[in-house]
Amino acid sequence: MEQLELLSELCTPNKSKMILLVMDGLGGLPQTADGKTELETAHKPNLDQLATESVCGLLEPVLPGITPGSGPAHLALFGYDPLKYIVGRGVLSALGVGIDLQPSDIAARLNFAGMDDQGLITDRRAGRIATEKNQELTAMLTREIKIPGIQLIMRTEKEHRAAAVFRGTGLHDGLTDTDPQITKVPAKPVTALNPQAEGTARIINEFVVQANKLLSGHHPANTILLRGIDSYRPLPAMPEKYQMRTAAIAGYPMYRGVAQLAGMTVLETENGIVPQLQTLEKYYPDFDFFFVHIKKTDSMGEDGNFAGKVAAIEEVDQYLPQLLALKSDVLAITGDHSTPAVLKSHGWHPVPVLLYSNCCRPDEVTSFGERACIRGGLGHLPASNLMALILANAQRLQKFGA
Amino acid sequence: MEQLELLSELCTPNKSKMILLVMDGLGGLPQTADGKTELETAHKPNLDQLATESVCGLLEPVLPGITPGSGPAHLALFGYDPLKYIVGRGVLSALGVGIDLQPSDIAARLNFAGMDDQGLITDRRAGRIATEKNQELTAMLTREIKIPGIQLIMRTEKEHRAAAVFRGTGLHDGLTDTDPQITKVPAKPVTALNPQAEGTARIINEFVVQANKLLSGHHPANTILLRGIDSYRPLPAMPEKYQMRTAAIAGYPMYRGVAQLAGMTVLETENGIVPQLQTLEKYYPDFDFFFVHIKKTDSMGEDGNFAGKVAAIEEVDQYLPQLLALKSDVLAITGDHSTPAVLKSHGWHPVPVLLYSNCCRPDEVTSFGERACIRGGLGHLPASNLMALILANAQRLQKFGA
Repeated sequence: MEQLELLSELCTPNKSKMILLVMDGLGGLPQTADGKTELETAHKPNLDQLATESVCGLLEPVLPGITPGSGPAHLALFGYDPLKYIVGRGVLSALGVGIDLQPSDIAARLNFAGMDDQGLITDRRAGRIATEKNQELTAMLTREIKIPGIQLIMRTEKEHRAAAVFRGTGLHDGLTDTDPQITKVPAKPVTALNPQAEGTARIINEFVVQANKLLSGHHPANTILLRGIDSYRPLPAMPEKYQMRTAAIAGYPMYRGVAQLAGMTVLETENGIVPQLQTLEKYYPDFDFFFVHIKKTDSMGEDGNFAGKVAAIEEVDQYLPQLLALKSDVLAITGDHSTPAVLKSHGWHPVPVLLYSNCCRPDEVTSFGERACIRGGLGHLPASNLMALILANAQRLQKFGA
Repeated sequence: MEQLELLSELCTPNKSKMILLVMDGLGGLPQTADGKTELETAHKPNLDQLATESVCGLLEPVLPGITPGSGPAHLALFGYDPLKYIVGRGVLSALGVGIDLQPSDIAARLNFAGMDDQGLITDRRAGRIATEKNQELTAMLTREIKIPGIQLIMRTEKEHRAAAVFRGTGLHDGLTDTDPQITKVPAKPVTALNPQAEGTARIINEFVVQANKLLSGHHPANTILLRGIDSYRPLPAMPEKYQMRTAAIAGYPMYRGVAQLAGMTVLETENGIVPQLQTLEKYYPDFDFFFVHIKKTDSMGEDGNFAGKVAAIEEVDQYLPQLLALKSDVLAITGDHSTPAVLKSHGWHPVPVLLYSNCCRPDEVTSFGERACIRGGLGHLPASNLMALILANAQRLQKFGA
C-alpha cells in the first residue's frame, strides 16, 4: 500500500495545531573541508534550544544523490512520493502566478529571449528585461495571438519569466522544451513524445511562430523559449487525505503554486518572516496545519552568498520565539533541499530536520546542524515520511492493523 | 524481488540455534522532556553487557509515524512486509484461542456487550463479565444458533471477548464491523464492501439477530459486537521459506495466533518469563528458531504504569543469564512496537534492537536504550529486515549472485 493511501485510511481529525516551517535550501556545505556549513555557522540559540527538546534527523528529499527542484522537494515534504507525483514546472509556474488551472490545460514556463538575424539564441533571458516590459509584451501576445479552438492565458512572473496556458479540448501532454539551454543555436521545435500529443505540439509551435512575428521589433526580447510543458493533473488533496484544514503562507509564486496543487488554502501575505508570522497569527484559529515558506535562505545560497545565508538563518532564529508563542502541538523545521552557497545551486545533500511535540522522544542532539542531526533519533529518512511523523505527533493517526 | 522471496531462495539449513526474544511494547518515552524512557531507567546490567557485545539499532515497525497493531508488528519481525500481508484481527483472535482455521473461513472478534430497550449500546464490554459467564454464553450461542449451510465455531477468549468463525462454502471477506466504537448508539449492521461479500454479510447479520434473541435475558451481556471480520488466508510458512524448524513460546492468544499464522509450532506453555524459559529449555533440542514473547512490558505500558514497565524490563534482565546459558548462535532482543507508559497505548516510535552472535560486528553501544541505539551499527531499519539479519548471523543465508 502506498504511504499516502495508508495515511488517508488512518487519519482522524482532532483539535491539534501543526506548523511546518520550511527554510528553503536550508542544507549547506562548508567553504573549506574543515569548516562549518551555513547552518552550523549561524548564531541561533533559539533553534539550538528547540533542537535539544526535539527529535532530529536528516531528510533525503528524493533519493541519495538526487538534486530536487522545488516542486518535487515540496511535494515530498507534504507526503507525496516525489517519484510518483511528477508535476511539470509549467504547471507550478502557472499556479504560482495565480492562473486558475483546469484539468487538461497545458501549461508552460516561458522566457523572453533574444535571437539574431539567423534565428540563433543570443540571450536566454532577454537581458533580464524589466517586469513592466514583460507585462506589456505578455498582454500584447495574449491579445494578438489567434489559434482556432484555443484560449491562451499568459501571465508575467518576474523579469524575463512568464507562464503560458493553453486551454481547449483534446490537448495532451508529452511535449519537449523549445529552450536549447545554450546560446548560439536556434530554439528547438516542440516535439510530441507520444502520438496523442502531436496535435498539441502543432498548436504550441504555431504559438511560437506567431509570437516571433509579434516580437520582431522588441530586441532583446524578440523571441520566447518554452520549458516544462505539461498538463494539469490535480493531486490528491491534503485536506481530504489528511482530514485537516491546511493553509500555506508563502510569498513566492512557485511555492504558492505547489501548495495550491496539494489542495492547501493559499493565504494572502507579504513576503518576509515578519509579515508571514503576522499572517500565521491572524489565521491561526482557522486552520489545523500551516506550511510557512521562507525563501531567503535559498536565494542567498543560489547567489553564493554564504554570509547572507547565515544571516537569513539568524533572522529566522530571532523570530522563533514569536512562532513558539503560538504553542502549536507539533512544529517541524526543515528545508525542502540543500542550497549550499559554495555550489550556488540546489544540492543533493540531505537536509536537517527537527520535530517538536510533547511526545516526540527527544534525542541527544543539542544543536541544529547538518552534522549534529546525523545522531538524531529520526535517523536518515525520506522527506516524504515527515508528514506521517507530523500527523503521528499530533496524535491524528489511528493504529494500523489490530 | 520481494525480501521474503529472496530469503527463500538463499536460505539453507544448518545446526545453528536462533532465539528472537520480543519484549512487547518495549520502546518508550520519557515522562518529562529531559527524563529517561522506561528502558533507560531500568537497572539492567545483563542487557547492557549483552548490548556491549552485540550490534544494536532501531527498528521501524511499519513506516515512520505509523503506530502498528500487534499483528502487523509481529509479522514484520518475522520477515513479512506488513503492508503486503494484512491480516484481520478476527483471524488472529481465532487462531489465538486455538481454532484450527481453514482457508475461506470467516473469523471475527466478538465482544459481549450491553444494550438498552431501544437497542442503544450501553456498555461495549458488558461490564467485563467473568470469563466463566462468557464460556456459558458462548456455548449456548454455539448450540442454539442455526444458519443453514454454516458451521458456527465460537470460543471464549477472556472476560467479554470471544472469537467467532463461520465455516461454509462461498463465504467472502470485505465486511464492516458492527461495533460502533461508542455507546448510546445502536450496533451497526455488517455491510459488504464488495458484491461477492453480500451473501456473507446476510449470514453474519442473521447470526446477530439470533444472538440478540438468545441473549435477551442476560443483561449486561445481552448483545454482541463484531470486529475485524476477515477470511483466513494462510501466509507463506516460515519453516518452508526459511528452511528451519520454528517454535513459538507465547502465553497470550493473540501472539500464539500470529505465530501459527506464520507457520510456527506453537508450544504449550504457562505465561511468564520463568515458565516460558522452562518451555524453551524443554524444547531446545527440537527446533532451530524460537520466538519467545514477553507480554508484561506492553501491559504495563498500556496501563500507563511507568514503574511497572521498568520492573518488567528488570525482570527480563534478571533471567537473561538463564537464556544466555543456552548459548544460542544468535540472540535478538527487541519489541514489536513502542508502548510508552505516558501514552497508555501503542506508539509510532522506533524500537531498540540488539543482535548478538559471534560474527555480529559489535558497535560502540554499551547500554540498551532508545537513545543509545541511535548510534548502533544496524542503524535505523525496517523491522521486516531483522529476520534476514538473524538468518545471516546464523550463517544460514547463501551468497546472492555469484
